[in-house]
Parts: sequence; structure tokens; C-alpha cells
Amino acid sequence: MTTAVTPTLSGVIPPVCTPLTPEGEVDAGSLARLVDHLVAGGVDALFVLGSSSEVAYLTDAQRKVVLDTVIGHVGGQVPVLAGVIDMTAPRVLAHARVAVAAGASGLVATAPFYTRTHPAEIRTHFRAIAAGGGVPLYAYDLPVSVHTKLSAELLLELAAEGVLAGVKDSSGDDGGMRQVILRREAPFSVLTGSEVTVDAALWMGADGVVPGLGNVDPHGYVNLVRSASRGDWEAARREQERLVRLFEIVHVGGSRMGGSSAGLGAFKAALHLRGIIDHPATAMPQTPLNDDEIGRIGKHLAAAGLL
Amino acid sequence: MTTAVTPTLSGVIPPVCTPLTPEGEVDAGSLARLVDHLVAGGVDALFVLGSSSEVAYLTDAQRKVVLDTVIGHVGGQVPVLAGVIDMTAPRVLAHARVAVAAGASGLVATAPFYTRTHPAEIRTHFRAIAAGGGVPLYAYDLPVSVHTKLSAELLLELAAEGVLAGVKDSSGDDGGMRQVILRREAPFSVLTGSEVTVDAALWMGADGVVPGLGNVDPHGYVNLVRSASRGDWEAARREQERLVRLFEIVHVGGSRMGGSSAGLGAFKAALHLRGIIDHPATAMPQTPLNDDEIGRIGKHLAAAGLL
Amino acid sequence: MTTAVTPTLSGVIPPVCTPLTPEGEVDAGSLARLVDHLVAGGVDALFVLGSSSEVAYLTDAQRKVVLDTVIGHVGGQVPVLAGVIDMTAPRVLAHARVAVAAGASGLVATAPFYTRTHPAEIRTHFRAIAAGGGVPLYAYDLPVSVHTKLSAELLLELAAEGVLAGVKDSSGDDGGMRQVILRREAPFSVLTGSEVTVDAALWMGADGVVPGLGNVDPHGYVNLVRSASRGDWEAARREQERLVRLFEIVHVGGSRMGGSSAGLGAFKAALHLRGIIDHPATAMPQTPLNDDEIGRIGKHLAAAGLL
Amino acid sequence: MTTAVTPTLSGVIPPVCTPLTPEGEVDAGSLARLVDHLVAGGVDALFVLGSSSEVAYLTDAQRKVVLDTVIGHVGGQVPVLAGVIDMTAPRVLAHARVAVAAGASGLVATAPFYTRTHPAEIRTHFRAIAAGGGVPLYAYDLPVSVHTKLSAELLLELAAEGVLAGVKDSSGDDGGMRQVILRREAPFSVLTGSEVTVDAALWMGADGVVPGLGNVDPHGYVNLVRSASRGDWEAARREQERLVRLFEIVHVGGSRMGGSSAGLGAFKAALHLRGIIDHPATAMPQTPLNDDEIGRIGKHLAAAGLL
Repeated sequence: MTTAVTPTLSGVIPPVCTPLTPEGEVDAGSLARLVDHLVAGGVDALFVLGSSSEVAYLTDAQRKVVLDTVIGHVGGQVPVLAGVIDMTAPRVLAHARVAVAAGASGLVATAPFYTRTHPAEIRTHFRAIAAGGGVPLYAYDLPVSVHTKLSAELLLELAAEGVLAGVKDSSGDDGGMRQVILRREAPFSVLTGSEVTVDAALWMGADGVVPGLGNVDPHGYVNLVRSASRGDWEAARREQERLVRLFEIVHVGGSRMGGSSAGLGAFKAALHLRGIIDHPATAMPQTPLNDDEIGRIGKHLAAAGLL
Repeated sequence: MTTAVTPTLSGVIPPVCTPLTPEGEVDAGSLARLVDHLVAGGVDALFVLGSSSEVAYLTDAQRKVVLDTVIGHVGGQVPVLAGVIDMTAPRVLAHARVAVAAGASGLVATAPFYTRTHPAEIRTHFRAIAAGGGVPLYAYDLPVSVHTKLSAELLLELAAEGVLAGVKDSSGDDGGMRQVILRREAPFSVLTGSEVTVDAALWMGADGVVPGLGNVDPHGYVNLVRSASRGDWEAARREQERLVRLFEIVHVGGSRMGGSSAGLGAFKAALHLRGIIDHPATAMPQTPLNDDEIGRIGKHLAAAGLL
Repeated sequence: MTTAVTPTLSGVIPPVCTPLTPEGEVDAGSLARLVDHLVAGGVDALFVLGSSSEVAYLTDAQRKVVLDTVIGHVGGQVPVLAGVIDMTAPRVLAHARVAVAAGASGLVATAPFYTRTHPAEIRTHFRAIAAGGGVPLYAYDLPVSVHTKLSAELLLELAAEGVLAGVKDSSGDDGGMRQVILRREAPFSVLTGSEVTVDAALWMGADGVVPGLGNVDPHGYVNLVRSASRGDWEAARREQERLVRLFEIVHVGGSRMGGSSAGLGAFKAALHLRGIIDHPATAMPQTPLNDDEIGRIGKHLAAAGLL
Repeated sequence: MTTAVTPTLSGVIPPVCTPLTPEGEVDAGSLARLVDHLVAGGVDALFVLGSSSEVAYLTDAQRKVVLDTVIGHVGGQVPVLAGVIDMTAPRVLAHARVAVAAGASGLVATAPFYTRTHPAEIRTHFRAIAAGGGVPLYAYDLPVSVHTKLSAELLLELAAEGVLAGVKDSSGDDGGMRQVILRREAPFSVLTGSEVTVDAALWMGADGVVPGLGNVDPHGYVNLVRSASRGDWEAARREQERLVRLFEIVHVGGSRMGGSSAGLGAFKAALHLRGIIDHPATAMPQTPLNDDEIGRIGKHLAAAGLL
């Protein structure tokens, strides 16, 4: 069951959190409810097995459970993109085969990591994944994890070749993103991964957003994007500014834990407080938020009108 | 078939290259010959599925072929350690189960990578792997890939707990390594991952070496370590200096490719020139060395008395 | 002669290039003409001795020539901010005394660099400079040079204390910048250092821009900011997009030279081609652009309507 | 009064701490006593205005006081090298003129920092300093401060040209240092900046050591180097191991302050406890050690037989 992807993917495409049981298994029931929550919020597509989905912590068996649960449950209402996050093309391709067989509409891959690589090798890597995947391929630019920045030149070259259908830009480098937007010629979706500069990215010509915080408040991001689409930039900005304040939840965990734990823990705590998922558990070895921290997240939710 | 590991693993433990066919599959025949070459060279143990084994490029199925081929072929003559390289403990544990079932004598794991982590989480990560593994666990300190340095404090604490049986230190920080050597109380193997300062590391009290270049010249590293063991440090240094010059082969590929391609390509080209493996192919998307570069590697081998 | 700085500095504040003779001395005549060009372009203030001024290459004597030339020539038409770029507070304060005596309206300082520092020490550093300076102090957030990012928390705390009057944010992290904009309570100028996302920064609430490219095309940046001020965001974006394309000149030097050489060399080549300065020379040891590269910069200028 | 430098500088060359008054001025009396302490300890030369001298915190006037005090007080008993630490060649040359006029026997300079540079520009930088200096020039390889690593190729090329007389290698990369040692052809001093691997560096062929900890215990480092020189490597190692344990003092300040504060604060606290300098004060904005921390440093000194 493959859902067609429009030539330029656009709108709100949240990276779907992966609810877990306290034992660390995928909580399929909660995941289905989260999907319903997102679809009801009006999102344009779903992105499973991204960084915000704790893909780095999920075994291959768990990744497959996520794919089957989400693609099965969503039933073609919106396209489902799948992250195929691994160190190099051969391992990425193994994930790609599973994702495509499960019905993913598109694949999202980073540059090689762990290895010491080179731009020429990054090109080869994406070409191989695109050739083997069979569905549109999106580059995931995430230097904080991959320790390589995808240059505008590289993206534009692979766009012109038809290798890449778009980019999820989580680099924070909006200047570089704008170069891609202004210089692209082939259809090529530019999606910002930033939760807090979406109105600006859309203003520059980005096609959409992949916001981790969109798990918690999909209606907010949908309202933001739709306001911008109809030209009501003031409304878009007001919504964005509310979401900027809500995004403070990712700092509650502070310096006693890693940035992944603090961010993903906050999203899950918020989803649990909102009654959407059964457990706020994050995957091992992340440090869990404590009761005080969860309480502070609750106050942020209340301030944002979400509790 | 589990081979017992001595309390403190020591000596020469090469990270075994993974010969590939031009199509990118594991060349089991060449791998068996490489194992024979290393065992005949007098090495004390083998380390499969490390960075020099191109583990980042091998699919899980290929990793299993490597484990079965090497452990089967070596037949208990020397212990075989297995790299279980992946992003976080849950994924590492999946590899660990396969490796232990295949008969690995010990496991080698890095800190979490790709995620934004924290020392407390690194401790949890290693504890979980040790608890789930069932064989001795060695930490792999490789900041160039993992982007985290394992501190002496962390290593000594996990050694005292019995979580870690040792460390492969590829950080290049010999001062930090010496802190661990001087302050360790529990049995804890300190193995340098440097090809070019082995005599110095042994002089400081390191127990052994895990040299990628040991694939090409195991006799050299065995001679180095045995010379040091019997107190003939002058002979150890002479052998080390010869190997320092031979190590220049890793720079032949230069800046037109990634560091992984240049280093692993050089080892494989040398093994091919020496007639030990059938193909010098490296895994995709690495850039292959060209004929001129391979010719220069041949000259280095000749100068080192290996052709 | 001190020119009063408005409580919240705003608008276009170009970091003034420092024209040099081929022998590496400050070309005061060209510098005066550049000042005229900028003031005629409508800029709101000038920032001398910033990174784009090659401050890292100027001796203390040359820095003083720049201060005296610019402050003397501008004659109070607009405020002149002075960079006081050095490793730590004691050295920064020595520059501050010279700059204030010369009539600078405000000072711009980075966090400590070269030393291994800590947020508590960065706070002490800025407090000491503010206490000793006597004119408003602006933080210069430039991680590519300083290798430290100034957090929103740190900036807001020092704003609330009255230590900092504003920030020049050249970090590229517009999400962090927005946090400062939304959470500031004291008067605190937020100025983007990005040449290519100015409309977006203003949209988010930034007060102004410090664009290196503003040397080449001050009228463009003034038009951009004034269009935004009067609510004509479409015009602001059109102007910004033209300037994004012009900004390509900083990549002409490419990978054969450092990023500073390529960027500053391009600005100076453009100023020379436009007839504003007598020599395109950059300071030693920067690599100069060659004739072919300068020719390509000329084509960019022509395409932008500047030749 | 220029003291001749031997073609290959060798032995123990401590980077001389700069004692300060509580008000932050150079304490010339304490500095003279420190010089006496070092010369009495048998050191082979002195290195003033290095990182361990807090050069990054000293004004130009204070730098001159240090030069005059030390060169005047040492009276030619040993050569005095001077750090000329600044961002680029033009500023470095200004310091060089002062240092040479004051009688420095050699200059020590880093690669450019703060700017975004390139190997070709680093070569130009060192060539310009050497041409303008008039005394032997030593490269200071300190990536933790400069954020560039000097490659073996670059060092060997500048050695062959006669531009560089040697290197102080504080990179921690002993493998790279060994490449330089084995491949150098011109007279070229290789000095390790590591306090804790000196026996190993000498074993590899290094000519000497520039140990910050040598301020505290010059006799120890002199004993270490002399033991190695006469071939008594066991004695050298015993001395080094004692000094490795003493070096723990640099970690006492821990994560509540920057690494510079913790290290330099520890050296000064130890010198104060030993009665050599009048005040343990470090320069602003470094965080001072508290009484508890100073007490722990005292225990380390006692354990090392220095109190």
C-alpha cells in the first residue's frame, strides 16, 4: 500500500514520537492514538523513524513494528515517510527495503556518519540509496548528529540529478537553506526542521516543516502553516510565538542529561499529560525526567492552552 | 564455542579487515586466508567487526557471515572479540546476542553516537550492554567517529564495577590513557589503537595493541610486542619506527577521499598486493584508490620489506 | 566627541571594511570615501574594527588610525561603534580605553577566546568590560571565530543587569535569537549579523542588521530595512533576495583559501571595482583573489545592478 | 642582550607562570623568585608569555614587564624564549619586535586564530614572522586554543625552508609528533607540551619538554630528562609516574570553571603553598580556586614530597 507523494511535499509533517512501555517495547496502542491525534490535527504527512522518533534507540524489529502500526493505522489518509537512519548506504538500503515493503511513501536518510567521509562519498551514498529505494528520497541535514553539513551545492546537484526529492533541514542554517530555495530548478521540497522559525522559513519559500513539537501541538503548526498560506503572516507569527514559548519545555531537563533525553522526554511527558499516550517512558540509556521536571512541563502546557 | 579470555587481554589483537568481492559481498575465502595470515603471524587474539573491518558499511547479514567465518575458521586457536557497533544500547544488544551466539569471546562497544548524550547516559549504556552480553565487554574510545571522549574517571569507575574488562583507546590521548593505567585497581586491559606509538604505550604499561596496520604486517607488531616483553626496548623501537614509515600508506589517498577510504583502502590494497586477499575492494560509498595510488602503496611495502 | 547611542540601536550598521595599501597600511583616503559611501547610502550607524574590518589583522596602531579616521570623518552624522576584539577582558579593556577616548559611541566585544573558558567566566568578562568601558556594550556572538555560543540565558541575564545593551548575532542560530527577542525585558538591541536572512530577522523582531555585504551595497540594505519598517514586506523580500544572490561573491575564492580571505577579499574587490577604494588588498597572511576571481565578482556586481 | 640558542633547543623549558598581585598586576618580585626557583632546579631554558603564563590575559604593558623582569633577572644564565601570541602575523610581529628588543633568544607563535584560515595562509603567516623576527622561531601547536592542528607536512616543509627552528607540540597527538621526529632532516627541535608522557616522547626522539607543571616541580622534570639522557629509562619512568599523579591537581577545580582556570589556578596555588610566589591570584575573568580546592592541592603536593 504505497501512498503517492505529491511532487513537492509540503505543509506540516511531524516526526512521529514512538511511545514505549516502561519495559522499552513499542506501545502500539499509544502509537495509534498519537497518529489519530496528528491526523485530526490536520497534518499533511507523517514522518516515522526520525530522530524525534528515537530511531537511534529502536531495534530493527521495533522499527518494523512502528512502520506496520503507523502505515496500517493511517490507512492512506496521509503519506508516511520513513527514516532509514544508519551509518552508510549498504545499511541504509537494508532499512529502505523494509520500509518500502511496509508501504512508506518516501525515505529520509542522512549523510554517512561514524565514518570519516567526503563530499564525493556523500554524493555516492545518496545516489545509491535513491537507486535502490524506489520511492522519493529526502536528505536529512542534521549536523548535530551526523557531524557533516550538507552544502547548498551538494543538495542542488543531487536535486538536478533527480536523486533527491527534498531536504529536511535541521541544521539551523537558514541562510544556507535560502540559497537552496532560491537556486533550485527541479521540483525539490525544502522542509525546515526548526520548531521556532517556521514563519520565517515559509516566508523565505520553504515548503513545510517537520517539527518535533508538532507531536504535542499539531493544531498549532497546522494553523501556523495555513495562516501563512493564505497570506495572514501576522496570524502565523502570533501562532509561532506561542509555540516558541512552548518549546521551552525541551530545556527543562537541563544539563543533568543529554540533549536528546531532555527534548524527547519533554515531548513524551507532554503527550502523556495531554492523555494521548499511556507512558512518558523514553528508550534506554536516556535519563528520564523526574516528577518536578514533568510538573514544570505541565505548567508550560497550561500556559500554551494545551491542558 | 566460546574461547576463554584471560583476565587481562594482552598482546597483538588486529582489527580484522573484511575482504569484499567487487560486488560488495563478504569474500569468505579471502577472509579465511587473512585469518590464517594473522594467526601465522603470531597474534594473540582477533577483533572482528571493528572500524577497520568496515563494520559501519556491513549489513547485519554480512556481519554474521564475518562472525561465522572467522570464529569457525580460527577454531579456538585464539580468542575472537566482536565489535557491536551501533548507536545505542538497545541496538548494540541486538548485535551482542548474535555475536555471543556465534562464539565471540568478548564484545567491543563505543559510547552512544548520533544522539546527544551525557556521561551519566554513557554509564547506563555500558552497564546495560555488560548486563545483557554475558562475555567480557571492552569500551572502544574513538572520538573521531563517536564525537565523545571517554574520560579516565568514567573508565575507572566502570572497571571498578566490573562492567568493563578493558578499553581499546583510539583517542590518541596517551596522557589520558596513562591515567587509566596508573590508577586502575581491578583487572582492566588497556589496549592502544594507535599504530605508531605502540612501544611508548607498552612502556607506559599498556597491555597490548589493536593495530589496523597489523593486518598488513602482523609479524612486525608481534615482534614489536615480544621485544618489549623481554625488555629489548631498542628492538621494539626499531620495529616500531619501520612500522611508522609503513603507516604512511594511509595518506596516499589524500584529500580527494574521506579518511576512512584512504586508510582502509590502503590496508586492503596492501593485502591484495601481498597476495593474501583476492580483491582490494572497499565497501560503498567509499572512494577507491586508483592505480597510481596503489602503485605508491606497493613502493611503501617494498621499502618495508613486505613485497 | 561622543555621539549618543539611542537606547535601542537599530537599522543598518555595516561593519566597515578597512581599505589597505598594497604595503598593508591603512589607506585613510579610501576609508574616508568608504564612510561617505555608507553614510550617503543611509546607514544608521557604523561599526568599525569588526571581523569584516580585518580587525584580527590590524596592529594596535592601525586600529587607532581607523578609529580616528572614521570618527573624525563622520563628524557625528551617525554613531560609530568600535570592536574591541581580543582574547580576554584585560586586553579588551585596553582597546576600550583607546576607542572611548577616540569618541566611540559603543563597544562590541566577544566572549573570551584562545583560553578554555566557562559561562561563569564569560559573565565576569562582560561585566568587567561594561564596568570599565563607560559607553554601551554590545556582545558579539560569533562561534565560528570564538568557538563559544552565547546562550539566550546568558544574554538575557546580562541584559537585565544592564551589562549588555545588545547583541550582534552572527551565530546563524535564528531560533536562539528569537528566544532573546521574545524574552527580553530591558531595552536590548538584537542585531543580526547575517547578510541573507535580514527580512526574516526583522520579521521576528530584530532591531537591525550588521551586514558585511552592506559595504558593497548599503543602499540595498537600507532599502530592505526601510521597506520592512513601513510594512512592505514583499519589497523587503525582493531586496533581500537580490542581496542573497549578490552574496555569492563570498564563495568565489572557494576552497583554495580560508573563509576570511574569500569573504573579505570579495567585499574589497567589489568596493574597488565600484571605484570606492583604491586597492583591493587584504591583510597578510590572507590569500588574495586572482584576476579570474575578481572578474567573476564583477559579473555578480553587474547582475545586481551595481556596475 | 641576546643569548644564543643552540641549534636544537633541548631539555626542560618550563612555560613560566606570571605571578600577579590581587589587583591583577604583574608581581615582579614573585616572578624573579620563580625564575630563581626554576634556574636552581636546573632547567635548560625559560619560555615566558606562553599559555601557562596567562599570556591571553596580559596587556601589552604587562607582557613587557614580564619580558624585562625575566630576561633581566636571568642575566643570560639560560636562554629565554618569548611567546608572541596573537591572532595573525601583523599583530604577532608587533609583539616580536618588543620581545627581540627585550633580549628574547627565540619566539614562539601559533597559527592564526579567530580568523577562518587555510594551510597556505598558515605557511605565509609563519614565513612572515620568521622574516621579521630575527631570532629562531618555534611553532606552537595547540589545537585546543587555536582550533587548527599543524600537520607533519606543514612543519617539515617550514623546517626544511629554515622558517621554523622547532615546534612545541601541545596537540596530544604523539603519533603525528613521531612522524616529524622521524622525517625531519634540517635541525629542528621537537618539544612536547605534555606533562604526562615526557619519557615516551623522549624515547621517540623528542628533544625536550615544555611542562606547565615544571613551574611547580622543575627538579622532577630535570631529573626525568637527565635520567633519560643517560639511558636510565626506568628512573625516568618512575619520575614521570610521580609527576603524572601530581598532575591531578589540574582537575581539582573541576567543571565549575574553565580548563584554563583550573590548570593555571592549580599551578599558582601550588607555587604559593610552596612559598615561591606571594599570591595565588589568577587573571580576570578566571574563576579562582576556593579554600577547599587549595587544600586538596596541598595534599597532592605532600603526596609528591613537595611540601
